[in-house]
Amino acid sequence: MNAFPRVEPELRKDPVLGRWVIISCERGQRPNPFRRYSTAVPGDDPCPFCPGRESMTPKEVLLYQGGEGAAGAPWNVRVVPNLYPALRIEGTHDKRGEGLYDMMRGIGAHEVVIETPRHDEDPASFSREQMVEVVNAYRERMIDLLRDTRFQYVLVFKNHGPAAGASLQHAHSQIIALPVTPARIEMELTGTGRYFDYRGRCIYCDIIQQELADTRRLVAQNADFVAFAPFASRFPFEVAILPRRHEPFFQTLTPGLTSAFSEILIDVLRRYKLALTDPPFNYVIHTAPPGYPSPDRYHWQVEVLPKLTEVAGFEWGSGFFINPMPPEEAARALRELERVMDVPDGHLLANPVP
Amino acid sequence: MNAFPRVEPELRKDPVLGRWVIISCERGQRPNPFRRYSTAVPGDDPCPFCPGRESMTPKEVLLYQGGEGAAGAPWNVRVVPNLYPALRIEGTHDKRGEGLYDMMRGIGAHEVVIETPRHDEDPASFSREQMVEVVNAYRERMIDLLRDTRFQYVLVFKNHGPAAGASLQHAHSQIIALPVTPARIEMELTGTGRYFDYRGRCIYCDIIQQELADTRRLVAQNADFVAFAPFASRFPFEVAILPRRHEPFFQTLTPGLTSAFSEILIDVLRRYKLALTDPPFNYVIHTAPPGYPSPDRYHWQVEVLPKLTEVAGFEWGSGFFINPMPPEEAARALRELERVMDVPDGHLLANPVP
Repeated sequence: MNAFPRVEPELRKDPVLGRWVIISCERGQRPNPFRRYSTAVPGDDPCPFCPGRESMTPKEVLLYQGGEGAAGAPWNVRVVPNLYPALRIEGTHDKRGEGLYDMMRGIGAHEVVIETPRHDEDPASFSREQMVEVVNAYRERMIDLLRDTRFQYVLVFKNHGPAAGASLQHAHSQIIALPVTPARIEMELTGTGRYFDYRGRCIYCDIIQQELADTRRLVAQNADFVAFAPFASRFPFEVAILPRRHEPFFQTLTPGLTSAFSEILIDVLRRYKLALTDPPFNYVIHTAPPGYPSPDRYHWQVEVLPKLTEVAGFEWGSGFFINPMPPEEAARALRELERVMDVPDGHLLANPVP
Repeated sequence: MNAFPRVEPELRKDPVLGRWVIISCERGQRPNPFRRYSTAVPGDDPCPFCPGRESMTPKEVLLYQGGEGAAGAPWNVRVVPNLYPALRIEGTHDKRGEGLYDMMRGIGAHEVVIETPRHDEDPASFSREQMVEVVNAYRERMIDLLRDTRFQYVLVFKNHGPAAGASLQHAHSQIIALPVTPARIEMELTGTGRYFDYRGRCIYCDIIQQELADTRRLVAQNADFVAFAPFASRFPFEVAILPRRHEPFFQTLTPGLTSAFSEILIDVLRRYKLALTDPPFNYVIHTAPPGYPSPDRYHWQVEVLPKLTEVAGFEWGSGFFINPMPPEEAARALRELERVMDVPDGHLLANPVP
């Protein structure tokens, strides 16, 4: 009855909420269809992300070689197409309806950023130079994928630890190019637009000013970025990282800003690791859709979410969250680490908040 | 710096998304603040929901006694205030701002429905009469709580199994009365309103007609209710249960409809139990806010979500979901149970789809 062969993923729109969902039919035909969608390889198999096993992944679309992070390995950062992509790169959307419902082919790109050649290396212990290469890979792939006019959005995210959705231990992040803008980004554009219409300013610029003045929710800062626990955090120890200067697009990062962003990202991950004993976490880059006509209204940022609690039906069904940890307390715990812990490396926490 | 004493829960509004979050400060002061919010009692302690331990919970606000479900126990269903409420019943909202941010006191009610006196009894094995009493308790408490004009919404939900957020094994559901309408319900009202403005009909009524005609996503049905896998399901084996006749408010259930609803709810839970080996799951009742001025536009329903996969950062950060199980396949697996399994009890699956 499906118009597309069963092996092709499909994008379907919720007719009430307007939210798109990838129905990845192919996954249902695998031996265990309930396994979390991921770059899944069983844990006892040889790691396909380690040097020497490059043939276990599709050919890379980006490779950074040499540099001081390499330590004898043939590359520092490697970006490859996902072996089990949620979306397919070939073809056209073929948007169509079926009665009330809207759907299109699951056209898109799904790539994996292998962040380091070392199997056991934790991003929290990356040098700034290493993280700069990872961030450059995000930026470079984003720019390249956005050249494809079929894509409306490129989502960059990292799952760290099995409870956060990572099924391979070797440090990696994921890039998904989508033919639609994700619901959450649409909602953010609506919200920032509403504020701009009323006040004529970017709400995130105003939030940064208020957080810097208030100080209770600050986690870390440097000359170009601020990290804080959002006022209405959904989850304990949620952190937002924003550039101080207004900028809607992540992919415009200059070398100087890339360095400052890498520094504060490592800093936040180290604080998590020290304060929360290496928790599972996710981070997601939020950026304006390419060609967004109102660049005054959006401010790119990174959302970092440790996974410390189970999300219950209450939250899923209602969109209403109970957070047992006031963000002021979470921020204080993360902020005061440099005072309460015996930090062996002077650079471990780069950005103490005065 | 907080205007309210730290022990009081607070409701905070996300300034961009407009979503309210309960910051339950009190929880942060407990020994393990990262424990999931719940009716938490450690597993090896005596169960506070069993008969004879009624003094371990606050005094009940509703008690159903006698009847054939009792089997010698002093009650069938008992509703008590939550010992660790996320919200407080006393006081006024005291809405206020703090710069950009909006907040109010965490005023509300948080109750627990103890569904059976038997510690090990699974809702999937409830008789229809037992489930009728549970549903009556939902309805009766909802009506009573909505008499309090401070409350804008009453949310009824169930967490089954630890992975779905339940920390006590004894079958129970929860009721939360809120001073605001949850974000998801607001989005549903927006979506149904948009359709009504365009077509002049309830979108859910049209969806029911399309699902009945299509049949591929049907799971179960009886004279008054239909259960199907939603076209754009976010999760594998997601099921929606809707009354065939248009009705915006759950709490208007008549005795006849209550019986039919109980029957189909048990039926869906039994199908889960048989097909998915007793999975953790959540269900949530979606109903129009009291006094909703456009009752033509909303259609109450129950969302049932088995928890079979981890939700990754991709989903949290983007609102964009990857579902590895096409709803047509999920529905077929649930629908065809009566044919493929040796069902011992003729009534086990009450609602085969022809």
